[in-house]
Amino acid sequence: MRILLIGASGHIGSAARAELGERHEIIAASRSTDPAVDLLDPASIERLFEQIGTVDAIISAFGSAPFKPLTTLTRADYIAAFEGKALSQIDLVRIGLPAITDGGSITLTTGILAREPLPTAAAAGMVNGALESFVLGAAGELPRGIRINAVSPSVLEEATGYHDAFRGFVPVSSRRVGKAFARSVEGNVTGRILAVD
Amino acid sequence: MRILLIGASGHIGSAARAELGERHEIIAASRSTDPAVDLLDPASIERLFEQIGTVDAIISAFGSAPFKPLTTLTRADYIAAFEGKALSQIDLVRIGLPAITDGGSITLTTGILAREPLPTAAAAGMVNGALESFVLGAAGELPRGIRINAVSPSVLEEATGYHDAFRGFVPVSSRRVGKAFARSVEGNVTGRILAVD
Repeated sequence: MRILLIGASGHIGSAARAELGERHEIIAASRSTDPAVDLLDPASIERLFEQIGTVDAIISAFGSAPFKPLTTLTRADYIAAFEGKALSQIDLVRIGLPAITDGGSITLTTGILAREPLPTAAAAGMVNGALESFVLGAAGELPRGIRINAVSPSVLEEATGYHDAFRGFVPVSSRRVGKAFARSVEGNVTGRILAVD
Repeated sequence: MRILLIGASGHIGSAARAELGERHEIIAASRSTDPAVDLLDPASIERLFEQIGTVDAIISAFGSAPFKPLTTLTRADYIAAFEGKALSQIDLVRIGLPAITDGGSITLTTGILAREPLPTAAAAGMVNGALESFVLGAAGELPRGIRINAVSPSVLEEATGYHDAFRGFVPVSSRRVGKAFARSVEGNVTGRILAVD
């Protein structure tokens, strides 16, 4: 398969690449690659697909959201969270859909905060929940046998910078996270939240 | 208790009012009441609380989102959904929090589309999922013993205009929806999604 992978340099993108790169052609795209893409800019997504043509699968390991105590989260923070993780990945789905071959797949990245709370994570949880319900809702309406799933991991072993924030959560291995991406891309599930925790 | 109810004239707000109005003082507020409020305008929410002072509970039965086939949903539709149902209710939480008495409660309205798909409902599902994860995440960080929950109903028996869209879903009674609001306001649960389906 020819797989577009957004965010290949991050912990989660690397996990997907390590698992799928052995068997498939990976087109890694981020702000600093050639071709480049910035998911926050829909025009940049359009340019990317003009450059790369069709793919069999799209994987997004993109997204960020502000972490702050609830009572200090501002309206702008919630908007930034929505744009930074949900709208950006939905734009990728919307704009990239015609470039996906029949029977292809889309895999987005959400996270455990959709279903488990954590201090400072109300906005981050919000966007993960938004994306998971979007995936559930979109699956039945995709054309041409195209599937969509979300990989929803807990904090990764390698993401040590987050371990203090995720006290009490058992970090998961990149290998397990990579397997979830493989299930989405190489399996036949759709509309599923593939939890790794 | 003194309860602020946003959206009292809709099907869901009416259900909350019928159940709780017997035992409590209800301040009903919408765009057309006095005092008036438009949840899409944060300044209007601030003015409302300046007018009404403190309350023991806030209930929001507010929200709308575009229903369209997935492949016709635009970027603007997803933004409208987010602002129309999620950001608006989160603004109410954010701005109204200081006006809630110690041990008071907030109850938002989400809906079954967060967990069950329906044709044309990908954007509507998205915002319901956003709010449910927000409620889950916010509960543990609210000050002064204040609780937060979401009532998440299926289509209401009275909402006949939606029955064609919700084919196969069993409409729920206003009475059962009202009971869920009572559990949130008069019970002691927090961070809960009170499903009515």
